[in-house]
Amino acid sequence: MSKSTRKIRAIYLDFASSALSASSNPGAIHELGLKEKNKLENARATVANVLGAHSNEIIFTSGATESNNLSIFGLVRNFKKPHIVTTNIEHASVLEVCKYLERTKQAEVTYVAVEKNGIIDPKKIKKALQPNTILVSVMYANNEIGTIQPIREIAKEIRHFNKNMQKKIFFHTDAVQAVNYLPINIAHLGVDLMSINSAKIYGPKGVGILYVKKNTPLSPIMFGGSQEFGLRPGTENVILAVELAKALQIAGKMKEGEVKRLTKLRNYFFKKLSKPAFDIVINGDLQNRLPNNINITIPNIPSDLLVIELSARGIMASAKSACKAGDGKASYVIKAINEEIKETDGSLRFSLGRQTTKADIDHTIKALSEILTKLKKWYN
Amino acid sequence: MSKSTRKIRAIYLDFASSALSASSNPGAIHELGLKEKNKLENARATVANVLGAHSNEIIFTSGATESNNLSIFGLVRNFKKPHIVTTNIEHASVLEVCKYLERTKQAEVTYVAVEKNGIIDPKKIKKALQPNTILVSVMYANNEIGTIQPIREIAKEIRHFNKNMQKKIFFHTDAVQAVNYLPINIAHLGVDLMSINSAKIYGPKGVGILYVKKNTPLSPIMFGGSQEFGLRPGTENVILAVELAKALQIAGKMKEGEVKRLTKLRNYFFKKLSKPAFDIVINGDLQNRLPNNINITIPNIPSDLLVIELSARGIMASAKSACKAGDGKASYVIKAINEEIKETDGSLRFSLGRQTTKADIDHTIKALSEILTKLKKWYN
Repeated sequence: MSKSTRKIRAIYLDFASSALSASSNPGAIHELGLKEKNKLENARATVANVLGAHSNEIIFTSGATESNNLSIFGLVRNFKKPHIVTTNIEHASVLEVCKYLERTKQAEVTYVAVEKNGIIDPKKIKKALQPNTILVSVMYANNEIGTIQPIREIAKEIRHFNKNMQKKIFFHTDAVQAVNYLPINIAHLGVDLMSINSAKIYGPKGVGILYVKKNTPLSPIMFGGSQEFGLRPGTENVILAVELAKALQIAGKMKEGEVKRLTKLRNYFFKKLSKPAFDIVINGDLQNRLPNNINITIPNIPSDLLVIELSARGIMASAKSACKAGDGKASYVIKAINEEIKETDGSLRFSLGRQTTKADIDHTIKALSEILTKLKKWYN
Repeated sequence: MSKSTRKIRAIYLDFASSALSASSNPGAIHELGLKEKNKLENARATVANVLGAHSNEIIFTSGATESNNLSIFGLVRNFKKPHIVTTNIEHASVLEVCKYLERTKQAEVTYVAVEKNGIIDPKKIKKALQPNTILVSVMYANNEIGTIQPIREIAKEIRHFNKNMQKKIFFHTDAVQAVNYLPINIAHLGVDLMSINSAKIYGPKGVGILYVKKNTPLSPIMFGGSQEFGLRPGTENVILAVELAKALQIAGKMKEGEVKRLTKLRNYFFKKLSKPAFDIVINGDLQNRLPNNINITIPNIPSDLLVIELSARGIMASAKSACKAGDGKASYVIKAINEEIKETDGSLRFSLGRQTTKADIDHTIKALSEILTKLKKWYN
């Protein structure tokens, strides 16, 4: 029978494994299940290809928060009295895991302080390494101030330490903010674990990636089915994984052009902001920062108020990480690079993207100028 | 200025919190963030309304596997030397968590065995309760054999025990398979924790619900931002939550009609299967089972092979839980109700749904008959 005349009626009687609204359960061994599984494995291969990794080193998670949690908890579980080295400006999903491990005496943690420019000194990471250190976790680029950390140099220090001590310290990086703009080839970076989020790279929300280098002793943090090589149970969300893989590919293709375009826009923004009338402090290094990040402090004016005033003029900016927004406290990242900052000062982050134009910047500068003229009457 | 003439230009400069492909970050305090937050809270209110719960008792998770993990791990963390009572036919995401807690000596667990009909005796749950019991976890309806557990009766036994002992044992139910067909009002059921999955109720994959009754001492199992009342960190997936809430509403509206329609279809299926030529064993109670579930064992014929033969004829059924499919072992659920089953026999599950018709059943019976005629030559 030729393929075109072979018409078999499809009857789906597997509603308990997945209701037939969108797609079948990729764990099912029937034809529709296998088709889903194929789509998932193609997505995984695409991701692996972009990162220069093997397919079985790619784990799909529910997002970077889970990827970061899985990296740290999953590794710590396999060691006795482990020690972790991280920095004082990591994302909450790294810092809060570390604090929990300290509180519950499951691990010791050293928080290496960044320099005044928001960048970590690799020598200070090296100094913090101990015989019982099992993990170094340093973010690739900071989510608030956009500073880029010297991941390759840190990897080198760890390799030297490992060689001298004949041991293996694993290196994790939270690459969430870096993926759009920086090289993410695994061999280039020299990391063992890397977290990626989908929503920050124009993919759908609710999905993320954890790269896990072969022979990294990771245990799952949730239990159930044996999906994702036994590291992440639960029916796989094939649609989101496929869209994430596409987003990652597109981000790779657009990287060079966007870096050039946004660097220009960002520098233009900074130039406009450096007029004396604004009287601002720029947070974080000017060179080693993401091309899309502007982070400033305007002394004496609460940043939440600035965000709301800007929003009223149709401009969506942020005061600090959305995960910590609205609590009225200054950002711990800004405090880390500026000890004298007042609790009420805070910071204002403009993060640019694919849709951002020069006209947007001009309009924002104009609006900010109006807002400051108005507010300075009250706050100075 | 009238609303219609007031045109503000919208400029999005918050790409670091969420790239502007679909939606803004609901944690952001600017206008687009607040809009997302509103959508999320409306979805939460819808879910709460369907369950007869309060909005702040509804946690969105990445799926029922996470909901089950969060229920058990999250509760256990707040007690010393805790004891858990569960059954021997729970989903892997409950059983594997319990086994992990036993292995790591974080909890004692009693696995109450179901009766031969696949239903738990509430008196046996009562008998298993100890002074240090903190949690009873019993699924509402089984995913493989569709048997419905007496949740209200078990809740009553726990309440009596609590009253006599002046303590509080919390009651969790994995309601994943029940939502389409059974009452899910919280007060009616008498549970403290309830897990719901979206993909099983015709909603999108990658999202689930955990109902957490007020004053239930639950800790998060992942750390980061303080989303979902501090119980589930990570940027909320608003789109999936909104779609899940809609799916839950629709399931509620369709429940009565679908129960009637599918009960008829299922009974018709069983009637056709009970012809002597088939020589099958029906697994699980015939009355107290989900209206969409047919689960049979065909002695001497491997069930994975039956699934593949059916699939070749366009019929998608399953041998056991998709989370455990393809490992060549008999289902632990079937073993629990039939000790004498051969490891190779397995079981065949047909689960019906909204799109299933009588013609589908007829076609399936015909196909199964052909397959058995063919296979019995080899296997008998």
